[in-house]
Amino acid sequence: MNAISFSRLEQRLRTLAGFGGLPGGGVTRQAFSARHEEARGWLLAEMASAGLETWVDAAANVFGATGIRHFSPDRPVVLTGSHIDTVPEGGPLDGALGVLAGLECLQTIVEAGLTHRLPLAVAAWTDEEGRFGSLFGSRAFSGRLDTARIADMASSDGERLVDAMARAGFDAFRAGEAKVDPAAISAYVEMHIEQGPRLEEAGVPIGVVEAIVGIRRVRARFVGQADHAGTTPMERRRDGFLAAAEYAVKAREIVGKHGGAHAVANVGVVHVHPGVANIVPARCELVHEMRAPDADVLERLAKSFAALARRVAKRRAVEVEVQPMSATAPAVCAPPVQAAITDACAALGLPAMRLHSAAGHDAQNLASITDAGMIFIPSVGGRSHRIDETSAPDAIERGANVLLHTLLRLAA
Amino acid sequence: MNAISFSRLEQRLRTLAGFGGLPGGGVTRQAFSARHEEARGWLLAEMASAGLETWVDAAANVFGATGIRHFSPDRPVVLTGSHIDTVPEGGPLDGALGVLAGLECLQTIVEAGLTHRLPLAVAAWTDEEGRFGSLFGSRAFSGRLDTARIADMASSDGERLVDAMARAGFDAFRAGEAKVDPAAISAYVEMHIEQGPRLEEAGVPIGVVEAIVGIRRVRARFVGQADHAGTTPMERRRDGFLAAAEYAVKAREIVGKHGGAHAVANVGVVHVHPGVANIVPARCELVHEMRAPDADVLERLAKSFAALARRVAKRRAVEVEVQPMSATAPAVCAPPVQAAITDACAALGLPAMRLHSAAGHDAQNLASITDAGMIFIPSVGGRSHRIDETSAPDAIERGANVLLHTLLRLAA
Repeated sequence: MNAISFSRLEQRLRTLAGFGGLPGGGVTRQAFSARHEEARGWLLAEMASAGLETWVDAAANVFGATGIRHFSPDRPVVLTGSHIDTVPEGGPLDGALGVLAGLECLQTIVEAGLTHRLPLAVAAWTDEEGRFGSLFGSRAFSGRLDTARIADMASSDGERLVDAMARAGFDAFRAGEAKVDPAAISAYVEMHIEQGPRLEEAGVPIGVVEAIVGIRRVRARFVGQADHAGTTPMERRRDGFLAAAEYAVKAREIVGKHGGAHAVANVGVVHVHPGVANIVPARCELVHEMRAPDADVLERLAKSFAALARRVAKRRAVEVEVQPMSATAPAVCAPPVQAAITDACAALGLPAMRLHSAAGHDAQNLASITDAGMIFIPSVGGRSHRIDETSAPDAIERGANVLLHTLLRLAA
Repeated sequence: MNAISFSRLEQRLRTLAGFGGLPGGGVTRQAFSARHEEARGWLLAEMASAGLETWVDAAANVFGATGIRHFSPDRPVVLTGSHIDTVPEGGPLDGALGVLAGLECLQTIVEAGLTHRLPLAVAAWTDEEGRFGSLFGSRAFSGRLDTARIADMASSDGERLVDAMARAGFDAFRAGEAKVDPAAISAYVEMHIEQGPRLEEAGVPIGVVEAIVGIRRVRARFVGQADHAGTTPMERRRDGFLAAAEYAVKAREIVGKHGGAHAVANVGVVHVHPGVANIVPARCELVHEMRAPDADVLERLAKSFAALARRVAKRRAVEVEVQPMSATAPAVCAPPVQAAITDACAALGLPAMRLHSAAGHDAQNLASITDAGMIFIPSVGGRSHRIDETSAPDAIERGANVLLHTLLRLAA
C-alpha cells in the first residue's frame, strides 16, 4: 500500500507549532495575528516546494493544488483541508493537522505519481475558530457569508475584522468574492482530531463523521448602573454583573435539564465594566455559545436562554439585550464520502466507528455545496483547545494514510 | 463672618476636573497615571501661588502649609485635605473637593490675615481609591503601611506599584519614610461629598461624621480546567467562571440575610481566562469588597464569604484561593472635632446631622494618630463614583465655609 511520509508530516507539524508557540507549550495563533500571517507565508512556501500550485482567495483562504491553477467547473477537484488559526492557548493539532496531512497526501501523490482522475487540492480556511466570525473562510468560499455584516464583525476584544484584514493586506469587503462555483468541487474530506473522548474510550483508531453540530453564539449585555460600592444601599443597586452571573448559573441548569444528550453550552467571554473594586458594575457583556446536532434542540435552547435573560434582568432591575453573533446549522456528512473513508479503513485494516462532531468544522460549510465528510483520529484524554492537546504519533500516521486512500478513492 | 471665595474654588474645581476629563463628562485620573501626575504639578503650583509652603513626601503625598515648612512636634499643625486621584469614570468632586476647599480655606486665612494659634496645612493623599492599595498615602503617613507588601502591590490590571511610582519619580520601597510623628499633628478634618442619599433625603446641608466603615478586599481565584466547549461533556467540565458566578450570586444573598443594616459588599472586578467563546473558562479571578461600620460584622461576613467560596468550589470540582488584598478597621471620629464642626454650623446658622460614612476615607488612618473628623455635604441623588456625580453650588459653598470655621476653631 502507498503511504505518506510520517517524518515529513511530523517535522511540518513541529515547525507550524513554532508560529505562536508558547514557552509552556501550546500555541496562540489567532486569525490575522502577526504569528498567523507568518505561518501563512511559511505554508505557501511549503506547498510550492511540494510541487503544488498555490493561491490565496479574497477571504484569505490558502490553496495548494495539483492538476489545476484555480477552481473551475471544467475540472472539478477533490478538496481536503482544515485551518491554521488557533484559539488563544490552543494546541498544535487542531486545524494544523488537517492542513498538513492534506499537504502530505498531495505531496505523496505527486512524488509517487499515483493515479488520480480528478485534480486534488488542499485548503487552509480562514478564521475557523471564530475570532471574528466562526468558519469565516469556508463560509465565504461556499457563498454563505452575510457580507452586509462584515463592517460590524469584530473580535471579543473589540478589533474590527476590516482593520485586521487590512493589516494583512486584504479588503474585507471583498471577502464575498471568494465564493466558488459549486460545480468546481467534486467532494471535500477533512481530517481532524476528535477533540473529545469517544474514540479513545472505545479504543478505535478512526472516526467516520456522520453529522456536525450547529453552533450559535449570542452576546448578552446586561446594563445596570455604576454606583459607589459603599454608599449605595444594597437594595437600590442595579448590578450588571450580578445579573449576568445569575444568568450563567441558571443557563447551565437549563442545558442539563432540557438540552438532551448531545447539546452543550458555554459562557467563555465575560467583560465587566468599569471593572473596579469599589464601583457597582454598570454592565456585563458575555458571549454565550450553544451547540447541538439537532436543529430543533438548538432552536429550543436559544429561546430558553433568551427568555431566561429577560427574566433575570427584570428581577434585578437591569436592562438586557441579546444579540445574535453567529449561527451555523447542523450538517449531515455525505454518504459517498463516508463510504470512501470506510473503504479506505477496510483496505488499511483499521477499525472505524461512526460518530457526530461536537465541534463545528469548515466541512459543514462545504457540505452545503458538495459531498463532504470528515475523518477523526483519537485525542489523548479527549483534550483540545488546551496547550496539552495531543494525539499519539501512530494515531496521526494512521489517520493521514486513511486520508490518502480516501482522497485517491474520491479522485479515482 | 469671614467667608471663602466660591468663584475661586469653583474655578479650581473646574480646572482640576480637566486633568483626565472625559468627553462625555466625568474624570478618569487614577493614582500615578499621566493625568494624575499632571494634576499634582498643577496643584503644587496653585498652593505656592496661594502663599503656602509646599512639599511632597516619600509616599507621594502633597502638602501646602502656612506657619510650617515641614511637620514637627515643635509646631503641631491642624491638618485638612483629601485626595486628587479618582476611580475610572469617576466624578469631579470625590476627593478633589476636600483638597481644593482646604486650599481655599488656607488661602482665605492667609490673605485675610485671620488669627490662628496653630499652623495649618492641606494634604492631597496618594491613591485613596486603592488602585494599588486603598488609602495608600494616608496609611504611610500614619505609620500603618505594611512595607513588606510593597513589592507585591499591583493594580487589578497587573501593573506593579513599584513601576508606577518609579515612573512618577518615587521609590516605592521608601514610602514608609512618609510616617509622621503623631505629636506633629494637632487635629485632622476632611470635607467630602456624602456619596450617598441620606443628607439630600433629610434636607440637611451638613453631615457630621461619627464613624467610618472598615473595608476589606479579597481576591478570589477559582481555578478549573480549560476544555473545548463543544466536545467536552457538560458533566466533566470544571468551569472557573461558573463557580465564580455562583459565588457572586450567593454572596449577595448572604449580605442581605446576615449583613445587618449597614454592611455592603461588591464584586467589581472579574477576569475570565482565557476569555474565548469556544473554550470552557480555565479560571476566574474576582475582587470582592465588603464594608461595615462594625468590626464584628465585618469579620463575620469575611468568614461567611470564604466558607461559601470553598463550598461552591468543591461542588463544581474547581480549586479556589481566597487572598486578602487590603483591610481597614472601622474608625470612630474624635468628639472634639465633631464638636468644632457642630459649633461652626451653629455659628453659620446651618442645620447638621450625625451619620456614619459608608465609604472609606483617609480620615480613618489619621484617626489612629490624631483627633480626626469629617464634614459631609449632600450629593445630588446620592451619586458618586459616576460621571454624573455632583453637588449643588450652594451646598459646596456652605460646606467650604463650615470647613473654614472648623479649621479656625481647631487652630484657635
